[in-house]
Amino acid sequence: MNDTDRFFMSRAIELAKMGVEENLGGPFGCVIARGDEIIGEGNNRVTSTSDPTAHAEIIAIREACKSLSTFQLDGCTIYTSCEPCPMCLGAIYWARPARVFYACTRADAAAIGFDDDHIYKELEKANEEREMVLMSLMRDEALEVFGRWAAKPDKIEY
Amino acid sequence: MNDTDRFFMSRAIELAKMGVEENLGGPFGCVIARGDEIIGEGNNRVTSTSDPTAHAEIIAIREACKSLSTFQLDGCTIYTSCEPCPMCLGAIYWARPARVFYACTRADAAAIGFDDDHIYKELEKANEEREMVLMSLMRDEALEVFGRWAAKPDKIEY
Repeated sequence: MNDTDRFFMSRAIELAKMGVEENLGGPFGCVIARGDEIIGEGNNRVTSTSDPTAHAEIIAIREACKSLSTFQLDGCTIYTSCEPCPMCLGAIYWARPARVFYACTRADAAAIGFDDDHIYKELEKANEEREMVLMSLMRDEALEVFGRWAAKPDKIEY
Repeated sequence: MNDTDRFFMSRAIELAKMGVEENLGGPFGCVIARGDEIIGEGNNRVTSTSDPTAHAEIIAIREACKSLSTFQLDGCTIYTSCEPCPMCLGAIYWARPARVFYACTRADAAAIGFDDDHIYKELEKANEEREMVLMSLMRDEALEVFGRWAAKPDKIEY
């Protein structure tokens, strides 16, 4: 990490602070940079937009991909003010940036009431062991659509 | 599960099929119901909207929450044509629906080129063991914002 990394992380932390002051949502901010340029940023807006997916990282990834007109963040760096929750880390794996820097840890988040670690532990369980009902239904009917995809000549893979 | 569950799952599978035919993205659809009413639905639009987070479940959750003006899906049921990826399952845990039905399994998805299982395995790793660089930076500066959140009298928790 260097001064540029610290500059972008300062902006992510500033976004987190703004989110708290403006009652947008939880105390989390995120910046995505390519080289010396910010191509996406966001802060948590779960409660102000009634959207449980409106975490800082998800908003920043959507904005960065829109600005690059691609669904991949090749060579980009994500700066997030807190270690990503499983939803956001999953989104980061799909977006495939080069590097991710975070500031606070998931233990720090748990200490102020955000129990991401609980979701991490749930994700590791088998479906029949989860605290939530998660069951398979009509697999054969849906497999027919998978067959169409497999046979589709002009599909765009991601 | 009953005939109503099968009806909603049929719609989720139909949305998946439409997505393939209309070149919107991968072969995945999702419906969210409260009682007998559909309150949100979606199909995968990753490639057509340049958005790696535009999975069927994420789109349906955002729409359902918007229609209910809340960030929680209490008492709702999610019907998805495939077992959710880690990003979507994380989003589902944040949204807290009552039940989730899926049709195809993650093994079925892997067989047609969608390796969600790889991301599940990555999420279980410690940060220093990941295939992606994920490092902490400027924790003390970000902790100051967490302190502001903890002390904030009018915060809305989620």
